[in-house]
Amino acid sequence: LGPIGVFDSGVGGITVLKALKATFPQENFLYLGDTARLPYGTKSPKTVFRYLTQNVEYLKQYDVKAVVVACNSASSVLCPHHTFGVPVYGVIQPGANAAFAKTRTGRIGILGTRTTVQSQVYVKALKNLDPDLFTIQQACPLLVPLVEEGWENDSITTEIIVKYLEEMKQQNIDTLILGCTHYPVVKETIQKVMGEHVQLIDSADAIAEDLANDIAQGFLTFRPEHGGRIDVLATDDGAFFHHIASKLMNPFSINSWEMADLRQVPEKRLYEDI
Amino acid sequence: LGPIGVFDSGVGGITVLKALKATFPQENFLYLGDTARLPYGTKSPKTVFRYLTQNVEYLKQYDVKAVVVACNSASSVLCPHHTFGVPVYGVIQPGANAAFAKTRTGRIGILGTRTTVQSQVYVKALKNLDPDLFTIQQACPLLVPLVEEGWENDSITTEIIVKYLEEMKQQNIDTLILGCTHYPVVKETIQKVMGEHVQLIDSADAIAEDLANDIAQGFLTFRPEHGGRIDVLATDDGAFFHHIASKLMNPFSINSWEMADLRQVPEKRLYEDI
Repeated sequence: LGPIGVFDSGVGGITVLKALKATFPQENFLYLGDTARLPYGTKSPKTVFRYLTQNVEYLKQYDVKAVVVACNSASSVLCPHHTFGVPVYGVIQPGANAAFAKTRTGRIGILGTRTTVQSQVYVKALKNLDPDLFTIQQACPLLVPLVEEGWENDSITTEIIVKYLEEMKQQNIDTLILGCTHYPVVKETIQKVMGEHVQLIDSADAIAEDLANDIAQGFLTFRPEHGGRIDVLATDDGAFFHHIASKLMNPFSINSWEMADLRQVPEKRLYEDI
Repeated sequence: LGPIGVFDSGVGGITVLKALKATFPQENFLYLGDTARLPYGTKSPKTVFRYLTQNVEYLKQYDVKAVVVACNSASSVLCPHHTFGVPVYGVIQPGANAAFAKTRTGRIGILGTRTTVQSQVYVKALKNLDPDLFTIQQACPLLVPLVEEGWENDSITTEIIVKYLEEMKQQNIDTLILGCTHYPVVKETIQKVMGEHVQLIDSADAIAEDLANDIAQGFLTFRPEHGGRIDVLATDDGAFFHHIASKLMNPFSINSWEMADLRQVPEKRLYEDI
């Protein structure tokens, strides 16, 4: 059996990969960052679904035993009726479950990209758990470029977060879903602006728990022999991606980097000798 | 002879299309916005060149007589030795020429995306005109998402522009190239921050002049019968794109909108009856 595939539009999903690695240290992981087409969060559901399908098909060529869609925008177009021939895990349901488990007042906020917010996936998942939950959403399109600019500690970023959270602060929520893999990078500022009484939900931890449950229940096979590799593919070439990915992955290290051309069948060199 | 093709990674190139329409009101134009893969300005030259080639090939299927690359990042990877089988115009050289014509002190600033700045194309084009010119560049990656968020008049945008221009203001430049099609939207703020003595160069006007020169010199055929159409293609589907494109194009109107799938040969319906 091959590795667990993890994909994201860019570097943000590395936070999910890190949580998975911490939970399953002996497992092999193959990460695909679709950096040539990022971001997904501003694109139409139709286009994002096309990208999702291509990425899953590409990863399947490495005999992945499962695919974790770390990207919220791509997870938002995952449909339970569509089968990929391999188990595909999105971050939405685990995030909604974690928020539902933590809330005491039943008032939950959701931050996400434009695509995720417009799709209402978190709202639907939460209302499915309990139709009486109160939900409020806010799209934060500038947080991704701010994080990628490296301005996470700049006062301008705080100002922008204050502006985005203005309405949400009026709504007395006690739980806030960070519905984008980039947002944990500015978690502390969000916590400060919202106040300590609001619990932040990071989907990275939630998805790792979800997989652990499925493994415990026998839904997903887990055979850790020869394991522990982390291989990273990206559709674009960039030193910046390597730099940020290594930083986010710390203290774990990445075994190999390669460029992925989604138009071509990969050579599968990575797992030949396993 | 078919239309003049114009392409950009997104909606910004509409400012170039508008300048072309104003200069050649009887010409047919076919605009392609590669909205499914935007932005280009954060991606590697190799990937941007692949996108450029695909877009030109796609437009050629409509028998375009020339292609104007409105995108600075894509223009930055245009190489004079690469022929596409159709005249391809980039925005860099006309922008550099216009700046060179306007400067009195020989001190020129350049604002652009990360890709454009790293490629140093403007610097090279200017030094080619006169090796003694002083140049200073600044990458402004946040301006594109700010404009796309519709925050062009927000005080946060002014703050970010002040921060980006901090070093440039110390350098006594008298001419500043707006090296990205999105930047003219925040032209007034840039002008205010730099002061009235600094002349801003908008590549939209420069490229229109460039084409007019080539037509006048007979390098480019111009036959305006049956003309005046503006047709717009985009690789992603989005109401937002239509909204912004129509606003930027005003007072001119757009004759048709269509989605372009770059993997397929287009049906060429648009120009069948011309």
